[in-house]
Amino acid sequence: MTEFFKNINKIQFEGTDAINPLAFRHYDAERMILGKSMKEHLRFAACYWHNFCWPGSDVFGAATFDRPWLQSGNAMEMAHMKADAAFDFFSKLGVPYYCFHDTDIAPEGTSLKEYVNNFAQMVDVLEQKQDETGLKLLWGTANAFSNPRYMSGAGTNPDPKVFAYAATQIFNAMGATQRLGGENYVLWGGREGYETLLNTDLRQEREQLGRLMQMVVEHKHKIGFKGTILIEPKPQEPTKHQYDYDTATVYGFLKQFGLENEIKVNIEANHATLAGHSFQHEIATATSLGLFGSIDANRGDPQLGWDTDQFPNSVEENTLVMYEILKAGGFTTGGFNFDSHVRRPSIDAEDLFYGHIGGMDTMALALERAANMIENDVLSKNIAQRYAGWNEDLGKKILSGDHSLETLAKFALDSNIAPVKESGRQEHLENIVNGFIYK
Amino acid sequence: MTEFFKNINKIQFEGTDAINPLAFRHYDAERMILGKSMKEHLRFAACYWHNFCWPGSDVFGAATFDRPWLQSGNAMEMAHMKADAAFDFFSKLGVPYYCFHDTDIAPEGTSLKEYVNNFAQMVDVLEQKQDETGLKLLWGTANAFSNPRYMSGAGTNPDPKVFAYAATQIFNAMGATQRLGGENYVLWGGREGYETLLNTDLRQEREQLGRLMQMVVEHKHKIGFKGTILIEPKPQEPTKHQYDYDTATVYGFLKQFGLENEIKVNIEANHATLAGHSFQHEIATATSLGLFGSIDANRGDPQLGWDTDQFPNSVEENTLVMYEILKAGGFTTGGFNFDSHVRRPSIDAEDLFYGHIGGMDTMALALERAANMIENDVLSKNIAQRYAGWNEDLGKKILSGDHSLETLAKFALDSNIAPVKESGRQEHLENIVNGFIYK
Amino acid sequence: MTEFFKNINKIQFEGTDAINPLAFRHYDAERMILGKSMKEHLRFAACYWHNFCWPGSDVFGAATFDRPWLQSGNAMEMAHMKADAAFDFFSKLGVPYYCFHDTDIAPEGTSLKEYVNNFAQMVDVLEQKQDETGLKLLWGTANAFSNPRYMSGAGTNPDPKVFAYAATQIFNAMGATQRLGGENYVLWGGREGYETLLNTDLRQEREQLGRLMQMVVEHKHKIGFKGTILIEPKPQEPTKHQYDYDTATVYGFLKQFGLENEIKVNIEANHATLAGHSFQHEIATATSLGLFGSIDANRGDPQLGWDTDQFPNSVEENTLVMYEILKAGGFTTGGFNFDSHVRRPSIDAEDLFYGHIGGMDTMALALERAANMIENDVLSKNIAQRYAGWNEDLGKKILSGDHSLETLAKFALDSNIAPVKESGRQEHLENIVNGFIYK
Amino acid sequence: MTEFFKNINKIQFEGTDAINPLAFRHYDAERMILGKSMKEHLRFAACYWHNFCWPGSDVFGAATFDRPWLQSGNAMEMAHMKADAAFDFFSKLGVPYYCFHDTDIAPEGTSLKEYVNNFAQMVDVLEQKQDETGLKLLWGTANAFSNPRYMSGAGTNPDPKVFAYAATQIFNAMGATQRLGGENYVLWGGREGYETLLNTDLRQEREQLGRLMQMVVEHKHKIGFKGTILIEPKPQEPTKHQYDYDTATVYGFLKQFGLENEIKVNIEANHATLAGHSFQHEIATATSLGLFGSIDANRGDPQLGWDTDQFPNSVEENTLVMYEILKAGGFTTGGFNFDSHVRRPSIDAEDLFYGHIGGMDTMALALERAANMIENDVLSKNIAQRYAGWNEDLGKKILSGDHSLETLAKFALDSNIAPVKESGRQEHLENIVNGFIYK
Repeated sequence: MTEFFKNINKIQFEGTDAINPLAFRHYDAERMILGKSMKEHLRFAACYWHNFCWPGSDVFGAATFDRPWLQSGNAMEMAHMKADAAFDFFSKLGVPYYCFHDTDIAPEGTSLKEYVNNFAQMVDVLEQKQDETGLKLLWGTANAFSNPRYMSGAGTNPDPKVFAYAATQIFNAMGATQRLGGENYVLWGGREGYETLLNTDLRQEREQLGRLMQMVVEHKHKIGFKGTILIEPKPQEPTKHQYDYDTATVYGFLKQFGLENEIKVNIEANHATLAGHSFQHEIATATSLGLFGSIDANRGDPQLGWDTDQFPNSVEENTLVMYEILKAGGFTTGGFNFDSHVRRPSIDAEDLFYGHIGGMDTMALALERAANMIENDVLSKNIAQRYAGWNEDLGKKILSGDHSLETLAKFALDSNIAPVKESGRQEHLENIVNGFIYK
Repeated sequence: MTEFFKNINKIQFEGTDAINPLAFRHYDAERMILGKSMKEHLRFAACYWHNFCWPGSDVFGAATFDRPWLQSGNAMEMAHMKADAAFDFFSKLGVPYYCFHDTDIAPEGTSLKEYVNNFAQMVDVLEQKQDETGLKLLWGTANAFSNPRYMSGAGTNPDPKVFAYAATQIFNAMGATQRLGGENYVLWGGREGYETLLNTDLRQEREQLGRLMQMVVEHKHKIGFKGTILIEPKPQEPTKHQYDYDTATVYGFLKQFGLENEIKVNIEANHATLAGHSFQHEIATATSLGLFGSIDANRGDPQLGWDTDQFPNSVEENTLVMYEILKAGGFTTGGFNFDSHVRRPSIDAEDLFYGHIGGMDTMALALERAANMIENDVLSKNIAQRYAGWNEDLGKKILSGDHSLETLAKFALDSNIAPVKESGRQEHLENIVNGFIYK
Repeated sequence: MTEFFKNINKIQFEGTDAINPLAFRHYDAERMILGKSMKEHLRFAACYWHNFCWPGSDVFGAATFDRPWLQSGNAMEMAHMKADAAFDFFSKLGVPYYCFHDTDIAPEGTSLKEYVNNFAQMVDVLEQKQDETGLKLLWGTANAFSNPRYMSGAGTNPDPKVFAYAATQIFNAMGATQRLGGENYVLWGGREGYETLLNTDLRQEREQLGRLMQMVVEHKHKIGFKGTILIEPKPQEPTKHQYDYDTATVYGFLKQFGLENEIKVNIEANHATLAGHSFQHEIATATSLGLFGSIDANRGDPQLGWDTDQFPNSVEENTLVMYEILKAGGFTTGGFNFDSHVRRPSIDAEDLFYGHIGGMDTMALALERAANMIENDVLSKNIAQRYAGWNEDLGKKILSGDHSLETLAKFALDSNIAPVKESGRQEHLENIVNGFIYK
Repeated sequence: MTEFFKNINKIQFEGTDAINPLAFRHYDAERMILGKSMKEHLRFAACYWHNFCWPGSDVFGAATFDRPWLQSGNAMEMAHMKADAAFDFFSKLGVPYYCFHDTDIAPEGTSLKEYVNNFAQMVDVLEQKQDETGLKLLWGTANAFSNPRYMSGAGTNPDPKVFAYAATQIFNAMGATQRLGGENYVLWGGREGYETLLNTDLRQEREQLGRLMQMVVEHKHKIGFKGTILIEPKPQEPTKHQYDYDTATVYGFLKQFGLENEIKVNIEANHATLAGHSFQHEIATATSLGLFGSIDANRGDPQLGWDTDQFPNSVEENTLVMYEILKAGGFTTGGFNFDSHVRRPSIDAEDLFYGHIGGMDTMALALERAANMIENDVLSKNIAQRYAGWNEDLGKKILSGDHSLETLAKFALDSNIAPVKESGRQEHLENIVNGFIYK
């Protein structure tokens, strides 16, 4: 147990009547829903970066958090102290998984060699901590966007040496992920985009990024990594435009490089909304394209144009998200990672817990409501009925290719078809959904 | 000559000192730029719908335009009057091309058969008018979004009979386009999206739309249509979400259905900005993916979240657009179609001319400035230099597949690489561009 | 009873277990909450325009609704049929109030005189219907934005004759509102803005609009109208910019013309979000400025940049809205008017009911949850504690003016003050709110 | 001369044919336009913070700039080195003015007393540098938003001690501004807003902020400061909502606290667009309300939802801005301060010059074009003609109060008025503007 969290005990489920704010009201890890425990359904992870690396700064202001491990001092000692705090936190919170970037856990040092050494040492520490705590790694990743060398891209950098540097980090982070039993490996291309088209060769950069993804997939197979490779779409920020704009864009990219059966998406709520989509849309699009992998759970602010990464707190929104996930069969290797952070003025140790408790309760309740929807799947029945014509003669002939444009036009004209309008009944369906959420 | 435009003469080029507001100041059709005339470069088209079908209504208000051909009366007589006005306008404006939807030129009637008959008659009229005026058809299209039958989609409708109805319109519109010598055929899926995911089967609808596109391409080859098939991306409006969100999304769609070598994109400025992209971005993305086809020239309002379809008037924006187009070799079958309309209070016949004159002058000036940029292509030189490393040993080995992740990491570590940051020089490049625009 | 709604009976409260989709699950009109019935708290109104005047058209498509009273025919007969349908609907829905624009209920005719006559006749009809049904008028208003004459503004039109025309409509609509016992009179300036600054005199238009508002207030006092005059803020659409952008902007306008104690605001959810604010923000701003009047209940789509006017269905959002309203003492003359419409494909008579039932249940549940928050007002207690320093010596001296900048700086320096940071505890507070919503 | 800028000479005007990228092409300081020199019209200032304090970091990445004065070391020595670099830069750039925050020029130290001492020492340094270089101070300000103590507001903080701390900074910064001959004093309330309504008392915070503004104005008069007090509106970022949302909001705030004749606005282009307005709109609104003060010149990215603070480079946009300013009589104490920064990858010393040169040339050219518009003010003539009716009998009687709603309605009805629609001619006016920009 660390000094920092010493006043906080392991968070327990206490039910909806709980008065204790440091308790779960809805997340009851072992409660069975549709044949699986909540824990197995939700596969929660907490993250290293927002909770233990971010000091509470923003573009207009300095660090507000006074974390002991973020003070000046010997970098490796600080990394150890950080790991102690992180695993104490993860354990007390009761999430089964965690996630990290390579540079979250170990100091980068002043050279590539130093980076490799520091990282290797800290992976040992993490392995030991996993053993001690039973925590598991949902996914690992390499941070190829924060260091100034990546200011003009990592895989898409105009300088191949920068590509090589990033590749080295990915090589090490993949190795560490495999060794730590990670269930996925994530690629987020924060700088894989452009600031201005005036100095950018789109075709060249796309080729570079495509080759990098292929190298990652080839390496996965070579080392026998069993997890899933995930791309995390985001439309912009920090760049003006990012190549992995959204799920549909990633799909085209994967098709171009023959990777559509090798890589899936890690969808973030706030990235979805920055791209002009609802969170549900991105999930539904991914499942419809066979690309659904994992989720970075958070929320944006509908009035703000940047990534606020707040904790999810809308049961309404997330019930529909859970419904899409359950309909698609649930997570396989993926899970809900809280890529969320407390607000800059939430400076207390307890605030880290409040944020995650709220997020976990929100998702647990959403799971429960969505499970009810699945058990009595009025929406799917309605959809089946709505599209029923496509299982009948005309529909089948169209989709199977038995009709050309000409034969179809002839058929239509000969029968002088006059389709009858049918109500889409959106309001009715919305009421049904609310009937599940508010019982 | 029609009564409506009787006070307006053919618009002439009068140069920058022109006092006459009904004259071109920059568009000098036969002026040679980079070996082609302005007319050949820009391939201007005016459209039927905004100029002759829209009555000046909006969601909050009734028609403000008192066009004689939009009054009540015999529908076919009105269609003739409309065609007279349209060709009088096109001719006086001096655009070489026009564009239309099937339902722009002929009344839909009350049945499919009536539609087919009316349309056939009016295609005869158009053919004759083309002969008389020398005007050519840039592209034709079918309106499969305005009629109430399409309220839940055309190709993506849950009812295959609606698909068949749309297919019949497309069949007829493609035939008419071919007969009228049209150089492209456009598909805009205004209702090919959803209002709510609650009643929508994304995978099913995507299959339907994919099959429709394949039928169009197969039909094109069957009838020997030499033009280009174009999809026009738009993210939303009228639907909440449209499947042809943007160019990158269309690319993935085409790849899925094996159509990436058959269909290109018709990019609209206002659709680009609604999708969260700059107009230049969409052009550059299309050329980098080999999808660039044609352009719907207009502009949106950066503060408004709907399609305002105003006339382009920014030489600054369009110089960069023209630069991308010239770099990619210019238009082949495509051109600049003004999918633009005068503002609702611009009720006079002259206003239709002011709008187009402004748009044409803007594009002509942008062409001239961009041609200067091409003649002394500092930007391309800078880009070549910036990415030069990719033509050297390390870069070549990475892109060719000679490096695996592991060998690259080994190389990097062995040489303890330390890339040197290079300025992206965005401000310098922006100054260079302004130096071309403001000589 | 009308033919159109003949298959629908009066909507009843059937509780959360209701299977009947045409029943309330949460809105139990006579249920007492905090000493008042739900009906008295919520003061629901349905509107004439969206339900009975809008034909299901949008910018890209024709009317989808086949309402008998929207067919061609004798205009006054149609107006009677519309009134029959409207009051049948209002009665079956069980809202206590309705709202209308002058031109919703009577045909405009072809001259001002004809308008006045038609309107007077239909006001008689409404009066009789109110007597028969017990329905009451929440507010009346004049439509000074749809007719082409208002294309460049009503009160802000460059032509004073247009101002006079609008004033005449307002004069008649205010008279009708008073006669029908209306509890408020609303001013929405849909065209009181600009399309382009190039032809606009902001100062002049502001003077015109200010004078119009003063005339309305003076007339209210002259005729002894006891209701409240309300301005409805909206930032844009149909204009590029509307002068009544949001509540804070309206406050400045009212202060300029000495009207801040005479006029309040009618806040619409979708207008709030179009202006870049949350709905709760606009309510909280209005109550903090003493301007809160009434509400146009609906919701926008967070991904779309226009007024979608969908029915409210978020209990989460509206619990906070209800909390703000209850904290401010609840409605006086205002209420919840559903300025909401069914989606264009929701073409059945039942859909009109589904939309309103969903909206009323959402608001009823939000009321119940918010009442719980008020009964144990943790948020207010937290706020009182957070700002407690302002009731102590230093805070009081600052606010009372006992400190100048200089004396305060001297005090601070002499005591070398070093304020201690306190957590804002946002996540904790969000969890508390969810604890009230999801019991 | 400093080491850092040693390779750069004073920037000279070399005209549009200049090949040297470190030269002005349009800004010719002494060139006379409308009776004043360009320098007098534009009153350019460069800023301390973006150029000399920001290290090139962003939310996702570390510092990219290797400025010697931002390295670790003795804080006061670094402040001196920074001042040397800053004045070397300002001088070589040839701007007549500069701007600063208190904490830009001196280290904050670890206590209020230390802050006061450090600041006083550095103000001496600045005074001497002004004497040596002839540079003048356009405005000073206090940074009451970056330090963690301001995380929940400065003037609006729940803790009056934080208010007192901010007041002390303002007291010192006003004193320094006066001593250094500053022509304005600016208040930007970066944290004067809220993160969540759940912990915020809007009315209380508004009272606090109002009192702070009054204290500032009272102090100005007490010390005889001759400059203008300016509020800089911004809608959000870093907070979710800022009280000084836009110019119209600030107007209402000033009216509430009786300050509308005491404080003016400092309008920033990027803040205007974040608030949903065009830059021109904010200028025109300010001049129409008598609030126009000064300008923070920059531009945002129309596709991005945060403050990118890029250098202005649109002559098209800024010609209209300059036109509004010239129409209003030009600057009095205000000027164009470049609140702009180079992009994070623009790491070279030259890039600081490229950014400012581009911005200054853009504004100079915009001034020249706008002056032509003023000399032949077609727009104003058109507006005068458009609103002419308001100078005739009916218009005058309405505005003067000679008509009540009733007498006006009676007049309208008696004469059965039927206003005639007049085209707004937006496209024609846009062409006229382009005719001035592209001669």
